[in-house]
Amino acid sequence: EAPPTTGMISPLQMLREFDYGTVKQEQGRRIREFRITAGTGVLQLNSVVSFNTWNFNGRVPGPALRARSGDRVRVIFLNHGGHSHSLHFHGVHRAEMDGVRPVRNGNATIYEFDAEPFGVHLYHCHVAPVSRHISKGLYGLFIIDPLQDRPPADELVLIMAGYDLNNDQHNELYAFNGVPNYYMRYPIPIQQDQLVRLYLLNMIEFDVAATFHLHANLFQVYPTGRTLIPREETDVITMGTAERHILEFQYRFPGRYMFHPHQDAIAEAGCMGAFQVVS
Amino acid sequence: EAPPTTGMISPLQMLREFDYGTVKQEQGRRIREFRITAGTGVLQLNSVVSFNTWNFNGRVPGPALRARSGDRVRVIFLNHGGHSHSLHFHGVHRAEMDGVRPVRNGNATIYEFDAEPFGVHLYHCHVAPVSRHISKGLYGLFIIDPLQDRPPADELVLIMAGYDLNNDQHNELYAFNGVPNYYMRYPIPIQQDQLVRLYLLNMIEFDVAATFHLHANLFQVYPTGRTLIPREETDVITMGTAERHILEFQYRFPGRYMFHPHQDAIAEAGCMGAFQVVS
Amino acid sequence: EAPPTTGMISPLQMLREFDYGTVKQEQGRRIREFRITAGTGVLQLNSVVSFNTWNFNGRVPGPALRARSGDRVRVIFLNHGGHSHSLHFHGVHRAEMDGVRPVRNGNATIYEFDAEPFGVHLYHCHVAPVSRHISKGLYGLFIIDPLQDRPPADELVLIMAGYDLNNDQHNELYAFNGVPNYYMRYPIPIQQDQLVRLYLLNMIEFDVAATFHLHANLFQVYPTGRTLIPREETDVITMGTAERHILEFQYRFPGRYMFHPHQDAIAEAGCMGAFQVVS
Ligand SMILES: [Cu+2]
Ligand SMILES: [Cu+2]
Ligand SMILES: [Cu+2]
Ligand SMILES: [Cu+2]
Ligand SMILES: [Cu+2]
Ligand SMILES: [Cu+2]
Ligand code: NA
Ligand code: NA
Ligand code: NA
Ligand code: NA
Ligand code: NA
Ligand code: NA
Ligand SMILES: [Zn+2]
Ligand SMILES: [Zn+2]
Ligand SMILES: [Zn+2]
Ligand SMILES: [Zn+2]
Ligand SMILES: [Zn+2]
Ligand SMILES: [Zn+2]
Ligand SMILES: [Zn+2]
Ligand SMILES: [Zn+2]
Ligand SMILES: [Zn+2]
Repeated sequence: EAPPTTGMISPLQMLREFDYGTVKQEQGRRIREFRITAGTGVLQLNSVVSFNTWNFNGRVPGPALRARSGDRVRVIFLNHGGHSHSLHFHGVHRAEMDGVRPVRNGNATIYEFDAEPFGVHLYHCHVAPVSRHISKGLYGLFIIDPLQDRPPADELVLIMAGYDLNNDQHNELYAFNGVPNYYMRYPIPIQQDQLVRLYLLNMIEFDVAATFHLHANLFQVYPTGRTLIPREETDVITMGTAERHILEFQYRFPGRYMFHPHQDAIAEAGCMGAFQVVS
Repeated sequence: EAPPTTGMISPLQMLREFDYGTVKQEQGRRIREFRITAGTGVLQLNSVVSFNTWNFNGRVPGPALRARSGDRVRVIFLNHGGHSHSLHFHGVHRAEMDGVRPVRNGNATIYEFDAEPFGVHLYHCHVAPVSRHISKGLYGLFIIDPLQDRPPADELVLIMAGYDLNNDQHNELYAFNGVPNYYMRYPIPIQQDQLVRLYLLNMIEFDVAATFHLHANLFQVYPTGRTLIPREETDVITMGTAERHILEFQYRFPGRYMFHPHQDAIAEAGCMGAFQVVS
Repeated sequence: EAPPTTGMISPLQMLREFDYGTVKQEQGRRIREFRITAGTGVLQLNSVVSFNTWNFNGRVPGPALRARSGDRVRVIFLNHGGHSHSLHFHGVHRAEMDGVRPVRNGNATIYEFDAEPFGVHLYHCHVAPVSRHISKGLYGLFIIDPLQDRPPADELVLIMAGYDLNNDQHNELYAFNGVPNYYMRYPIPIQQDQLVRLYLLNMIEFDVAATFHLHANLFQVYPTGRTLIPREETDVITMGTAERHILEFQYRFPGRYMFHPHQDAIAEAGCMGAFQVVS
């Protein structure tokens, strides 16, 4: 059985896809240029529910932007989303580049700043009500690699989010990487004994926090990706909205292993997935 | 006044009770064997509310299973619970031993794995809807001691849980170790200046997190019991569902001291207790 | 435009105000004496909503009490609040000084204990229902400075709280330092490159946790103020009710920068503010 057509990029594609932008030299400085377009699109959440997303580059979540510490980052933002939107980045930058000013539909703007500090950051629309703009789909990861690369690993992106289908500020469905239960139907293949580096973000609005639990294993935690050595080992970690961490682990035995928030009602409403460990 | 008859094991008994199983030798290997039976039973939550539990070994929470790092653990599971149930353990094990497959009523199965790594883990039924199977009472601690024992201490088990009395995915009552307000009516006696080691688990479903607060004192935190030295000192710690830690403290002055989540509405709905420090 | 008259002390005043009490010598011991009176007062939350507070010393939050590690602290408590109230302090003290006994309206009592350990603590009324007494306004910070002062910094107090206007155990409004959106209308001036030391408390009832997010910057975290070196660097931190930390940061570029919980619905209901960084 093939993954369902969603009319948008599937979770399968976005799992290991990073957008490194385009690198140019200007006045002896390395510029990393990204292009983000806000738009709309219908995402099929399950066989009966379709959702009118607001999205970046035709996908929910948006692209996982990736730069090197110290790069000059330039983001060319076009708003074709039908409403005012913006790009607010986490990380360090000038007030003018903070992306809290709405960009009207049909307009464009450029955000430019130095990529710092290394770690796992995020970006999202910051137009009010932010909870609505985010939960409609306007968010993505922004990874800044340290000057010295982390050790080789199978690097994955997982973003937890919720869907408020009836605008009552409660989520009826949840997902990893946009589509509820996708990785339950299509478990993520990983190699036995292979180091997995997970860039994990909790982007669920309306529930104040969620945990991430990995079955039959423990993971090393690099909080906000701001360390090069792990700070904690566990199998359940609590993450408030917009928290994000690097988690590292490897599976010693082949087979199928679930992952999900241990708020089991959230898991059972779609925020559930599995790894298929192959030998 | 004697503790109320609940028809089940009381919180008083389960506070300092650990199930070490039965140790045997097989082919030169130490096997630690546990027997867990899923059943049903009525728990008197207060003078007017009785609750039809689903439980392990006739108690809510289930027994605090305890092994030594590296033991071969064998769990003989009988399901007499009237529904399909299972035993899902946290910790490291093969996919086949992950306990996500339902065991039908009247059937039995055996889970077997090496106890690793040392720390405070848990087990619970993993039959859908997991939130319901857990909140009906199907959970317990699984402690793996390090090869070298931790220092001598008065060791206690406390598990926070909620009761959704009307199946609306909100809890009306809460408890430490099964019975709301039990340790308020029967404060836990501890010795002045005695090191207390608390194995604490948050098993509350439907609320995404709860804190644990200790009055008039601070505690040392060993996250997930995965360290031998403490990582933090505080008197309020946030724990998402399924998070568990070792907390250590000692009281310097005699008297009565409360503990409870600092989400005071949760505390006042039954998740409240007290220590009686005696000199 | 001048800050609105609230009939009570404004958030502007309380931002950098610490109550060091009165120091006396008694039998060769240094006594730090505080006076706290519980009362009532109307707080104008916005142009249409006024709130009947229960408060300490005519303000919500109450004064940020501040002592030195090892001081003998004496708190003279007068209850003119119309209901029974009490003062429960976090930190270490004898059971008799724990402040869980209600002090009836019109009565007074004295709490006395040694200030220990250094860190960021809090105090609040502990009369049932505590969730109501706290959310009506009966809380404040209690800072114990280490024997050796922390490095010089611009020290600020921020307390997040919620308002349950219709007594349904859900908050309709939220605020930093009492008044919703106050620091959005009157951004907090700070100096460029100046070290800011934020004493931050989450006192929101009814929501189990909230994050604190700082725009365009990261902060160093000193958990519960119990360390002299930071333990983590991030820009989003999850805090359960009654959790409090020291956060340190400095802004390198001038301009206006928001801060708020990243539970954006909470932020947009009033828990939002901004720094104005001036060069
Ligand atoms: Cu937007
Ligand atoms: Cu953000
Ligand atoms: Cu079950
Ligand atoms: Cu679990
Ligand atoms: Cu009170
Ligand atoms: Cu408190
Ligand atoms: Na920058
Ligand atoms: Na909804
Ligand atoms: Na194992
Ligand atoms: Na309920
Ligand atoms: Na003291
Ligand atoms: Na309300
Ligand atoms: Zn809009
Ligand atoms: Zn598990
Ligand atoms: Zn699971
Ligand atoms: Zn069932
Ligand atoms: Zn307390
Ligand atoms: Zn209390
Ligand atoms: Zn009252
Ligand atoms: Zn931000
Ligand atoms: Zn913001």
